[in-house]
Amino acid sequence: MSLAIKGSPIHFGPFLVTSQVFHQTPLSFALVNLKPILPGHVLVSPRRIVPRVTDLTPNETTDLFLTVRRVARMIERVYGATSLNIAIQDGAEAGQSVPHVHTHIIPRKKADLDFRGGTDAVYDMLDGEEGNLGKVYREEMGESREKDKEEGYQLMADGHRQRRRSRFPAVDNEQRKPRSMQEMEAEATFLAAEMEKEIEN
Amino acid sequence: MSLAIKGSPIHFGPFLVTSQVFHQTPLSFALVNLKPILPGHVLVSPRRIVPRVTDLTPNETTDLFLTVRRVARMIERVYGATSLNIAIQDGAEAGQSVPHVHTHIIPRKKADLDFRGGTDAVYDMLDGEEGNLGKVYREEMGESREKDKEEGYQLMADGHRQRRRSRFPAVDNEQRKPRSMQEMEAEATFLAAEMEKEIEN
Repeated sequence: MSLAIKGSPIHFGPFLVTSQVFHQTPLSFALVNLKPILPGHVLVSPRRIVPRVTDLTPNETTDLFLTVRRVARMIERVYGATSLNIAIQDGAEAGQSVPHVHTHIIPRKKADLDFRGGTDAVYDMLDGEEGNLGKVYREEMGESREKDKEEGYQLMADGHRQRRRSRFPAVDNEQRKPRSMQEMEAEATFLAAEMEKEIEN
Repeated sequence: MSLAIKGSPIHFGPFLVTSQVFHQTPLSFALVNLKPILPGHVLVSPRRIVPRVTDLTPNETTDLFLTVRRVARMIERVYGATSLNIAIQDGAEAGQSVPHVHTHIIPRKKADLDFRGGTDAVYDMLDGEEGNLGKVYREEMGESREKDKEEGYQLMADGHRQRRRSRFPAVDNEQRKPRSMQEMEAEATFLAAEMEKEIEN
C-alpha cells in the first residue's frame, strides 16, 4: 500500500491515482506510470488540476520544480541512470493528452534505447501510443476502447477527439500490457521509501 | 543592442552569449537561439555554469523555473502560440550537448509542423542537427567544422566526441543557415521589451 493511501484522494486530470502516488508535498505529487516508457519513468504534477504551466501560481511553480528536482535525483539513483529527460507537453498542440500539468521524468543510461534506434527514440515513444496518457488511462478504464482504436482518435486537452498525427507508430505497443495495480502500488511503496532517503534540499 | 549588454558578460557553457540574452534575473538568464527549431524557440539557463539539474541549489531551481514560466507566457503571447514544449536534456545520455543546464521553450500552434510530419516532429528536430547546440555553436566559431561533419561526431557533455546516433536526420538542415548576430540581437532587444510587459508574478 503506497503512502498516499493514508492521505486524501489524488486526481491526475479526471483519473483517481491515489495508490500510484509515491510522494506528496503541500502543492505537488509524484506518481508511477501505467505504461512507463523506460523503467523509472514517473510524473510530477501540481495538486490543483490546471492544464497549463502559466496557470500555476508562483508558489505552485516553485513547489512543483523543487519536487521535480528531488524526485529526479532519487529516480536517477534508484534506477542506476546517468541522465534524465525532463519534459512538459504544455497544451494540446505540444502533445498534451491529459489536461493537468505533468512533468515527465525519464531516467536514461548509455545505450538504453539502442534497441529502439538510439538516444532520441525516447521522444517518439513519449509522443507515441506509449506516452499518450489520456488514451492509456481511458483504455484502462474501458471507455470506448475499441472504437477509438479503430478510428485512430485521441482525446485532446480541451475534450474534443482528434485523429492522431503521430508519424512514428510505437509498433511494439500492442505487446506492452498496462501494469497491474498491484505492480504499480509495489513500485510506489518502494519509491516512497527511497524518497525518505533524500536529504531535504 | 540587447539589454544584457549593459550587464556583465554571460556565458552559455563555454560560449559568450551576452548579446543574445533578452532577460536576466539574479540567478537565471534567457537567450535567443542561433538556429531556432521554430520561431520563438528560446533557452532559459542558470547563471552558474552547472551541467545537471541536481547541481542547482534550491534557490537556483526556484529562480530558474519562475523565469521559465514568465518567459514561456511571454513567448506564447508574442509568437501567437497556443501550446509550448518545455524540455530539459539533463545529461549526455538524454541528448544534452552543452554541459550547462538549459530549458528549451518552443512555442507551438495547430498544424505548425505538419510540413515536417506533425506535432511530434519537434522532438526529432530537438535531437537532430537543429537542436545540437554544441555542434551549432562550435560550427559558428569555426572549430573542426568539416572534420566533425564528415566523421559524424558530436561533442558530448563530458567533453569526449561521440558518433551521433540520431535515427531521423534533419534532412533540410543544410539549408538552414545560422542566424546573424544582428538578427539575434534584434530579436533579443524585441523580446526584452516584451518581457517588460509581463506582470511580476
